[in-house]
Amino acid sequence: MGQNQIQIQDQFWNTYSDLVRETVIPYQWEALNDRVEDAEPSHAIRNFRIAAGLEQGEFGGWVFQDSDLYKWLEAVAYSLRHHPDQRLEKIADESIELIGQAQHDDGYLNTYFTIQEPGKQWTNLYEAHELYCAGHLIEAAVAYYQATGKRKLLDISCRFADLIDRMFGTKPGQIRAYCGHQEIELALVKLYGVTGEERYLNLSQYFIDERGKQPNYFIEEWERGSRTNIWSQGAPNLEVYQSHLPVREQKVAVGHSVRAVYMYTAMADLARLTGDEGLKAACERLWSNTTGKQMYITGGIGSTHLGEAFTFDYDLPNDSVYAETCASIGLIFWARRMLQLEVKSEYADVLERALYNNVLGSMSMDGKHFFYVNPLEVWPEASLKNPDKHHVKPVRQKWFGCSCCPPNVARLLGSLDDYIYDVSEDGRTIYTHLYIGSKASFELADTTITLHQRSELPWNGRVEFSVQLPKDSECAEFELALRIPDWFQNGQPTLKVNGEKQDIHVENGYAKINRSWSDGNTVEWLLPIEPKLVAAHPLIRADAGKVAIQRGPLVYCVEEADNGAPLTSLVLASEPQLTAYADPDLLGGCIVVEGDGFVTDDSSSWSDEKPYRSYINQKKEVRFKAIPYYLWGNRLAGEMSVWLRY
Amino acid sequence: MGQNQIQIQDQFWNTYSDLVRETVIPYQWEALNDRVEDAEPSHAIRNFRIAAGLEQGEFGGWVFQDSDLYKWLEAVAYSLRHHPDQRLEKIADESIELIGQAQHDDGYLNTYFTIQEPGKQWTNLYEAHELYCAGHLIEAAVAYYQATGKRKLLDISCRFADLIDRMFGTKPGQIRAYCGHQEIELALVKLYGVTGEERYLNLSQYFIDERGKQPNYFIEEWERGSRTNIWSQGAPNLEVYQSHLPVREQKVAVGHSVRAVYMYTAMADLARLTGDEGLKAACERLWSNTTGKQMYITGGIGSTHLGEAFTFDYDLPNDSVYAETCASIGLIFWARRMLQLEVKSEYADVLERALYNNVLGSMSMDGKHFFYVNPLEVWPEASLKNPDKHHVKPVRQKWFGCSCCPPNVARLLGSLDDYIYDVSEDGRTIYTHLYIGSKASFELADTTITLHQRSELPWNGRVEFSVQLPKDSECAEFELALRIPDWFQNGQPTLKVNGEKQDIHVENGYAKINRSWSDGNTVEWLLPIEPKLVAAHPLIRADAGKVAIQRGPLVYCVEEADNGAPLTSLVLASEPQLTAYADPDLLGGCIVVEGDGFVTDDSSSWSDEKPYRSYINQKKEVRFKAIPYYLWGNRLAGEMSVWLRY
Repeated sequence: MGQNQIQIQDQFWNTYSDLVRETVIPYQWEALNDRVEDAEPSHAIRNFRIAAGLEQGEFGGWVFQDSDLYKWLEAVAYSLRHHPDQRLEKIADESIELIGQAQHDDGYLNTYFTIQEPGKQWTNLYEAHELYCAGHLIEAAVAYYQATGKRKLLDISCRFADLIDRMFGTKPGQIRAYCGHQEIELALVKLYGVTGEERYLNLSQYFIDERGKQPNYFIEEWERGSRTNIWSQGAPNLEVYQSHLPVREQKVAVGHSVRAVYMYTAMADLARLTGDEGLKAACERLWSNTTGKQMYITGGIGSTHLGEAFTFDYDLPNDSVYAETCASIGLIFWARRMLQLEVKSEYADVLERALYNNVLGSMSMDGKHFFYVNPLEVWPEASLKNPDKHHVKPVRQKWFGCSCCPPNVARLLGSLDDYIYDVSEDGRTIYTHLYIGSKASFELADTTITLHQRSELPWNGRVEFSVQLPKDSECAEFELALRIPDWFQNGQPTLKVNGEKQDIHVENGYAKINRSWSDGNTVEWLLPIEPKLVAAHPLIRADAGKVAIQRGPLVYCVEEADNGAPLTSLVLASEPQLTAYADPDLLGGCIVVEGDGFVTDDSSSWSDEKPYRSYINQKKEVRFKAIPYYLWGNRLAGEMSVWLRY
Repeated sequence: MGQNQIQIQDQFWNTYSDLVRETVIPYQWEALNDRVEDAEPSHAIRNFRIAAGLEQGEFGGWVFQDSDLYKWLEAVAYSLRHHPDQRLEKIADESIELIGQAQHDDGYLNTYFTIQEPGKQWTNLYEAHELYCAGHLIEAAVAYYQATGKRKLLDISCRFADLIDRMFGTKPGQIRAYCGHQEIELALVKLYGVTGEERYLNLSQYFIDERGKQPNYFIEEWERGSRTNIWSQGAPNLEVYQSHLPVREQKVAVGHSVRAVYMYTAMADLARLTGDEGLKAACERLWSNTTGKQMYITGGIGSTHLGEAFTFDYDLPNDSVYAETCASIGLIFWARRMLQLEVKSEYADVLERALYNNVLGSMSMDGKHFFYVNPLEVWPEASLKNPDKHHVKPVRQKWFGCSCCPPNVARLLGSLDDYIYDVSEDGRTIYTHLYIGSKASFELADTTITLHQRSELPWNGRVEFSVQLPKDSECAEFELALRIPDWFQNGQPTLKVNGEKQDIHVENGYAKINRSWSDGNTVEWLLPIEPKLVAAHPLIRADAGKVAIQRGPLVYCVEEADNGAPLTSLVLASEPQLTAYADPDLLGGCIVVEGDGFVTDDSSSWSDEKPYRSYINQKKEVRFKAIPYYLWGNRLAGEMSVWLRY
């Protein structure tokens, strides 16, 4: 299935793609050029200018700063493929020109080592992110080539990839290593996809296979003492870098969560492309652990800011959480690849959960402020005054010195059309993973068809499809497979074809309609949405005695702005009588959920001096108000909580 | 009131004083000499031997390592005053000899600077703990002199104190500074007490008055760049060291909690001795903030391990808690001084709370294992696998590299006789702060009497006193004041004199009986104890929806050993029918509290793959079992919780 055949036409999502195009991309360009007031400087463009010899100066920012420009270029490419924009393309072309000027003759490209540590290339694979940056360069190049047909960045990438291919491997004289931050593995698969060059696929496979082998390269590198120290002291903690074991032997998600899911993404790609059953089994085990035992209800992953890492099964604290935006984006990448490896609705369920909640919530409604950490519980004073929670920000920030997340959001939201459908290998089934209004063309086994989707999600569970056949076709045989989301649990959805209710045949979580379709045929797909109470697994101790509210794919939360503080005094009634209504004036328009509850222990009845006293049963009935989690933090800084006492 | 006139004779507490004498002191001596297997070495004695020129080597341990020996000597002194022990006194004398050999000719004494940084004395007051160590030397010297009458250590101390007095102050040529870790201030007050030399009192007052003045000395020291870096980088965070404001302007407890309470202790001493009303008011404000808004129910203080510090009002997380043993001991020191400043039962209430719970719980039943951090909630796997909780240990440790806490426990428990009584300045009232069986002699205004106390606390609220007059006295006029503890809330206690019930006159939380006493008169003081449910202030968000169980002064907790895991699934019944019974076989014998509860959401009903699902109401009735908090962690490592869902 080609990449240019799906166009999103959806009220909910067009708001976001417009925001990315009109605000996020221009704003981030300003940020990359250090022109955003009161924000930490990026240094990214300046680093390239210095490396290209156009300016004098020191390297600025993090060692991986180059990747911010690459991710921005990738987002630009996705934008250009549906919205040609000569001015933007010119800016992009100029920055590609700059990148080319910073490339060494042998293909090497990395401004940190060019400016700061010349001659030290490839000596600090553990920390220095060289191959990581190369990976983002490649991803940008592939996207830009596909969107514009221009080869310049692709050629730059191939020259660098060819250098890497010569430098790394098991042959004599090659460095038998891999990168501390996985990313190049998934990028090389994309480069293989667009060039057809098998050496890129093999190089990706090599990096995956080599990882975690004994003797461990990172330990050797450390013992050699060859590398400059960037962050770490002491012996490498191999779990952080998922190099503690060969990947096929890994059973639980450990370490830095972004690195982990980027790696799992490449593993799923390789399992699909090579038919490697061992790799597929590893992907499935790691998926089950990650999403079954280490994922927040918002689709966030990573329970600690120390190492930005997974901790262990069922350890999901809500207030000291990490749940980095990039980690959820990586989870979405991985889920996408798992769907391509084997269509199962659970992969799309997680994808949708992370997308509508953790990722969407990371960006402000103005597209200019971002969360790096996405908490499920916020007490603003604690974020300020308790150092254990300094990483949890109660309001979105303008830009970060380490600004991996904002451009990652832009490139995901800009390429969302890639996430809606799949066509089976035999060209006979169209799988619908996400219900996002769109016009999509599919080349099927026997014909080419166009599918128009209209969706009222996430607000209402009403989706309509209409089939458009080529002018010369009378009918087309194919199967339409519609995902039954995990949030829909009221028996079976209603499926009507041309107004007539159909029996549903379900396979791997998808309802399938196999028939001969005529032009103009319609499908109605009804998934009535009600707010419901969700409980967490009892081993998730942080959520004990609490419930969350979910309505369709949206997780809800309560905010101090609507419910006062402390939110910990709010308890749901045993029959909370949840009601949902649209409030067009609230936060740009959304569906609010209200319910019955009570407030325990009014603090006004306490003397100021005593922190403890004999228990007195005190309750005051209240009606509480919950808003979609993704909209939190768009008013004044205040308390917020996803999980509510029950 | 002299120091040698109270002898504890109490079943509960004698166990501890015996443990300190027979086990803790000898064990710690082995530790100070690096002879405890599998424990981190102390280096303390070795450092003194090197500084004294008796051995060659490098300095070992922390910059404040000397203080461990001084605190041990202080504990030895308290032990010797009731239990003469020639062998122990000989060891102590030899170590005092060694200390003397390490002292410089001018009186200076600190093995770190003698060995590691000669010539750099007094250049790093912010970090280097020189005056802190001097303070512990002085405290040990005072105690040893009082116990044995031997002046050697006192003379060493005076020589050092005289040097400090010459070096520090506002006169030309003097260093206008103070120590990063408060301690010398309270020690100098003790040295004044035993020597009568006013210059020591004035020096203490100077250190207190100088602190926090502008321009700030620590900032100047840092800007000068004169000091060696021990821990900190960047500009000093003055709040950590309570030098952000002059002490009289401080309103809330901030920064490193041990430093804070050691300083407040000296402030209360000085307020009493100098009649300084401004200092008294500051003490009262800080007391109210510390114990009213920043204290755990166990008497623990310090909410974060980062900086071992206070955070802010009502921020009392149970599982990432610090609640360092030394901080509660410092709180007890401070409470003791507040009682001397003004007798109010609330000071003794806090003293008792910290003593019976946080402090007692810090030591294992064998006297050889200690908690540094005293959590109110433990999940052992999180302590191991979540770096945010690495500081919370689920089992007591043998010895710490930074071993401030174990010798501090020893010196507190060894001097508990100092905490039971006070006599009013006019010599007419005997205040009883703690109910601990004992024999005490008091020199009152008109006579000398002996008071025998028998107490069944903490298990039963029955206390008896009998009055013994000198042989030649027929009667004595004095007032006996008995503290009404905050945990007693069933109306008024019963007070009988010679078997006859008395009306109670209460003043500042003390029941007062003013009468003429004859030899053999008895007082019965009955405070019936029932287990009760305690709630936390609703602004303490960590405890919302939860209650604790308290019985008399003892806070209870549930352990996995008795109740299974996860403890977060346990909920108290709305009428939990708490019952208490003695279990002579459990943990050396204790009173257990049982109650009705239920377990929600049996994890066996959950599929392993799904962390979230629609809420289902599931409850199974159980009878839960709680044990005194101070006994937790004496079985296998398991979950523990003080606060229970309700």
